[in-house]
Formats: sequence, C-alpha cells, structure tokens
Amino acid sequence: MTKDTDTIHTIRWTDAGLELLDQRDLPREENYLLFADVTGVAGAIRDMVVRGAPAIGITAAYGLVLAARQHYAESPQDWRRRLDEDIGLLAAARPTAVNLVWALQRLQHRLAGITGDPAPVLLEEARAIHAEDIEANRRMGAHGAAVIDAGSSVLTYCNTGSLATGGYGTALGVIRSAWAAGKLQQVYASETRPWLQGARLTAWELVRDRIPVTLITDNAAGYLMQGRRVQWVITGADRVTANGDVINKIGTSSLAVNCRHYGVGFMVVAPCSTLDFSLDSGALVDIEQRADAEVLVLADRRIAAAGATAWNPAFDVTPAELVDCLVTEQGVIRAPDRAKLAVLEPGFGNSG
Amino acid sequence: MTKDTDTIHTIRWTDAGLELLDQRDLPREENYLLFADVTGVAGAIRDMVVRGAPAIGITAAYGLVLAARQHYAESPQDWRRRLDEDIGLLAAARPTAVNLVWALQRLQHRLAGITGDPAPVLLEEARAIHAEDIEANRRMGAHGAAVIDAGSSVLTYCNTGSLATGGYGTALGVIRSAWAAGKLQQVYASETRPWLQGARLTAWELVRDRIPVTLITDNAAGYLMQGRRVQWVITGADRVTANGDVINKIGTSSLAVNCRHYGVGFMVVAPCSTLDFSLDSGALVDIEQRADAEVLVLADRRIAAAGATAWNPAFDVTPAELVDCLVTEQGVIRAPDRAKLAVLEPGFGNSG
Repeated sequence: MTKDTDTIHTIRWTDAGLELLDQRDLPREENYLLFADVTGVAGAIRDMVVRGAPAIGITAAYGLVLAARQHYAESPQDWRRRLDEDIGLLAAARPTAVNLVWALQRLQHRLAGITGDPAPVLLEEARAIHAEDIEANRRMGAHGAAVIDAGSSVLTYCNTGSLATGGYGTALGVIRSAWAAGKLQQVYASETRPWLQGARLTAWELVRDRIPVTLITDNAAGYLMQGRRVQWVITGADRVTANGDVINKIGTSSLAVNCRHYGVGFMVVAPCSTLDFSLDSGALVDIEQRADAEVLVLADRRIAAAGATAWNPAFDVTPAELVDCLVTEQGVIRAPDRAKLAVLEPGFGNSG
Repeated sequence: MTKDTDTIHTIRWTDAGLELLDQRDLPREENYLLFADVTGVAGAIRDMVVRGAPAIGITAAYGLVLAARQHYAESPQDWRRRLDEDIGLLAAARPTAVNLVWALQRLQHRLAGITGDPAPVLLEEARAIHAEDIEANRRMGAHGAAVIDAGSSVLTYCNTGSLATGGYGTALGVIRSAWAAGKLQQVYASETRPWLQGARLTAWELVRDRIPVTLITDNAAGYLMQGRRVQWVITGADRVTANGDVINKIGTSSLAVNCRHYGVGFMVVAPCSTLDFSLDSGALVDIEQRADAEVLVLADRRIAAAGATAWNPAFDVTPAELVDCLVTEQGVIRAPDRAKLAVLEPGFGNSG
C-alpha cells in the first residue's frame, strides 16, 4: 500500500533472463518467475502469467532475445532458421492480440542485415519497444483525460494498467491522468469474468495508486449506466481493424451497446501498435476460444453441475459505430471510421 | 443424473416443520434444512437458503403457518398481534420480490374471520399457493413455448426453475416445455454473478432433466447475440410494475438492451402474483443492495485487493419497452404496456 505504480515491474529484463510478475497469483501473492528460454516465455503468454495486448508484445520481444542468444551460442551458422521457428512459436501463443505479431515483426526487421550475434541488436529493439510503450501510454493518458469533464465518474473493464502494458497503462493510464488532474469523482471497475482481471488486477493497481475503486459484477454495468452513475466507459483493445472495429476482452461489445443505449461515452484507448490495417473488419479476426474449465471451475472448485459445458470466447468484436472516442498516442479520434484511421497507417501520405 | 425434475423438492411441508433444500450448497451437496419456527424461515429467506420470487412467497406462507401454530399454542388469546409482527418480519426478509408480500396478504385475508386455531386454515392456504404456483408454471410453459419457433436456441438467466418456484419453473418452465416439444436446438445459461445461480442451479436442473446446457459468463451474452447464436433470451421477474417495467436479477436490463440492439427476442415469464399494480413504474421499487463481500469474496477467498469496495445491487429495472413478450398463466402479452397489463389486474372489469 505504500508503493506507487512505478514499482510495478510486470516485465523486467535481467542478466539471468526475463522476469515476469505472475498475474495469476495476484492480488494474493506477488511472485516473480524467471524465464531463461523462449519455450518458457511462450508458455507464460499462453498460460496468462502475463496478459494484456501491449505486455504480451513486449514479453514476446524479450522472449525472442532469449531465443537468439541460445541459438547463436549453440549454432552460430544456423541460428536464423531456428529463430524463425521460435517467432512462429511466440506468435501462436495467443492469437488475438496484434501487438504480439507487431513486436515480433519489428525484431524480425532488425535481423535483416545481421551477420554476427543477433542478441544485442534484438535486445536493443525489445528495450525500445518497451520504452516506447510506456511513453505512448503517458501520451494517451493526457489525450484521453483531456476529453473527460471534471466531476465525471468512469467505469473501466478488464485490466489495462501497468500489468497489461510496459507501464502506466492504456485505459487505466487515462484514468490515472484524469485522476491526477482532479477530474474524477468515482472509478468503477468491472470484475471481468472469467479471469477476474478487474477484481484481481485493476483494483490492485488502483489501490496501490490510492485511487478509490468500486467493483461491480459485469452484469451490473448496464444498471450503473441507467442510473447515470458514470459518464464514460473506458477500455483498452487487443486489436483495432482498418474500419475501426475493436477486438477486446469478452464483454466489451455488451458495454458499448449499453453505452449507446444510455448515452454514456465509450472510449477505447490503444497505442498505434494495436491497429491492424491488414484486416478490413473485426469479422476477420481469429477470436481465441479458451478452455471450458475457465468458466466451469472457480478457485479450483467446480461451480457448475457435472455434465454442463461452456462457451468461452476470450474476446469479442465491438463495431466501430459504437465507439465514441479512439485514443492513440497520436491523439483522439472521435467516431472513428476507416477514413479517420487511415491517417495513422504507417506510410500514410508517403505514397503521393 | 437418473432423477427427473419432479424429485426436486425445494420446499416441503412436513409434520416436523418446513424443509428447505439449501441452495447455497448446490450443486456440490444436496442438504435439506428443517425449520420449526418463523425466525428461522425469515433468516433462510434473507440468507438465500431459498431464493427466486415465487419460491420466496411460498416459503414465507409456510413460515407464517409455523408462526401461527406457535403463537396460538403459547397464547390462544393474543396470537393475532404476534402474528402481525411476524408478517412484518417475513416481509422485510427481502424487499424486492413482490410475491413475498402477495403470499402474506393472501394468508392475512384468511385470518379475518378466525376465532380458534389459525394454523390449519393458513396451512390450507399455503398449500393452495404452492399448488397454484406449479399449475401456473405449467401453463406459462405451454404459452411461452408456443411463441418459440422450432430450431431455436435460447439463453436463460439466473435460476427460474423448480428451485426458484413451487416446481417446474417460470422461464425455465418455458424452456422445459419448448424442449419437450422438440423445438430447441441449444440452451445457454448465463452464470449470473455474484451468486452464480445460472452455473450452480440452472445447469444442475437442466442436467437432471437431460437437457444439454452450455454455460457462458454474463459478459459473453452480447457476443452470443451478435453471432446470431440465440433467438430468444428468456428470464423470470421478481416484480412487474403497472406500466410493464420488469424488476429482475441484476444484469437483466443489460441483456434486454443487447436483445433490442441485435434483434433477439426478450421474453419475461412471471405468474400474475409477480404483477404489482400498486407501483406505477420500476423507478419506485426498492432495489435490494447486498453486502460488498458477495462481490469481493469468492468461494471463501478474497478476490479483490484489500481497500477496494463494491456496488452490489441484487436486481435491476428493465423498461417495459424492451420487453417483447410477457408470459403469465393467462397467456402471452406482446410488447406489454400499461393498458395491456391492466386486464390482468384483480377486479378488472368488475367495477362497471
């Protein structure tokens, strides 16, 4: 309770390897796991030791550094082929967040001209991705907070803070900025079943920052809006497609539908690394289906009758037309659509 | 798995007192608790040994029989005043469901002309309420099922089955009828946080009936609709006000908003005992706020960081205009409103 946000080291590169805060044990225990090889890192992403689109991208980048170091040491002639396999391994660890592929592509790009040991160059790039993410979050925080009127109350979803990013957070970064600016009356966090990232992680971060937080069950969000208790719902994104559709934690679309119905603002906060111009719309995104047990079992106890099955998509698609504001490090786009997003596409304006 | 629905005795009157199936332990254990006095019964309602608006009403009725028996035995001259106090005690156990008050008023009405032992008359009335509830559920099942097209899939919410009523169920009764008629392709149940009545109770009832059930987290309902995986969402009600507003388990209104957005049918199934013509609209209903711990603690473990609080309304208000069908034992009302509901008001048409 005496620490502040800057002491949350979700992802830390050390001489011994990559250290990750095991988010599955929070808020009960703060356990750090050390990963010395890429297989372990891919497993950590898949098993949700670390989660959150930007954090996954940064983790994968460091994971590839571990792979490069190992493969070059074992086989200075043949490391490139084996590194390509590991890029595939990391990319497949979780299919929905685009930041993972984006980070790996950035590292891959740096490999092009290398003849000697690739590890130092990749480590430099991974560290740059990490640092840029924190910087982008700070900018998004300021951009998003500027949109919020003083005296507002907000609801946030899942965890989009220091634990989900390189640091500070996307949606939670906006909330941190707005709180620091004295604009917020109350912060609600939705618990976010089945993993309870809101209850376990977002509440933990906010309490550490001494920002009062009130939890709700996910099904209470509509009624919260009906009573005009919040003016904004603020979420992150795992991928934003070219038309502005938002892929984010399951339940996001239901919040957006309720926001539109009740006239509550719906804000999505995501760095440009989350934009995927290769996909035309959200319908084309591979939505990860996770194990039934995540729904049927809770705290190691089966909660549902034997014989029941589950449908457990990890993400859903919020149509662009339900998004009031898309906040990136470049600024705020109101009522995002294909044309407004195109300006953010890498290379826009360069082709004449 | 070899039993059928008729063997679920949620509420059973015995010579020794009132036996209730402790729903807090399901599906893990089937424990029956015996209550021999009214204080215990009021506590059982408050602590959710038994829940579901019709089941609460029936339980309260039997509870008053216990009170009458005791007070008459202890004080044949003065039982009436003490019985009135116990009516207050029972009515206050949970404030939102109107069936509780309705059942108590029916018993109170029978007390008017009694001079001797009130218990036999009250027991007769409690048994009648119980039997009529089952009969009403059977009728609603048939009425509601007739509206559903063959090959449909449905989502239900909370628990509205044998455990929530005198037997068979309201919304779950419609699903049982539609399933028996071969009309249903798939039944989804929403887990219904924080008490998980969907996961714990509805799944248990459906598995016993050999009706395949697929659970979802509450936040997945909107995405289920977006993918056209369900044609109807079917819920019960704890109270329906004169204008057709529906007070039901927290999260119902969010489902209704999503149904309207995606063009999915929204059906509310409730006996006439749930209609409350004394209240003009849902805004006037006392919505029960329950303890923070229901949200912050799960399976005896604190899930949220110390320092976080919760907002935990047990019910919400779904505006009448979002309801496509209201099913009572009298039939189906499409797009219910004040005028259509007035026909169901006791005494309608008698006043000239």
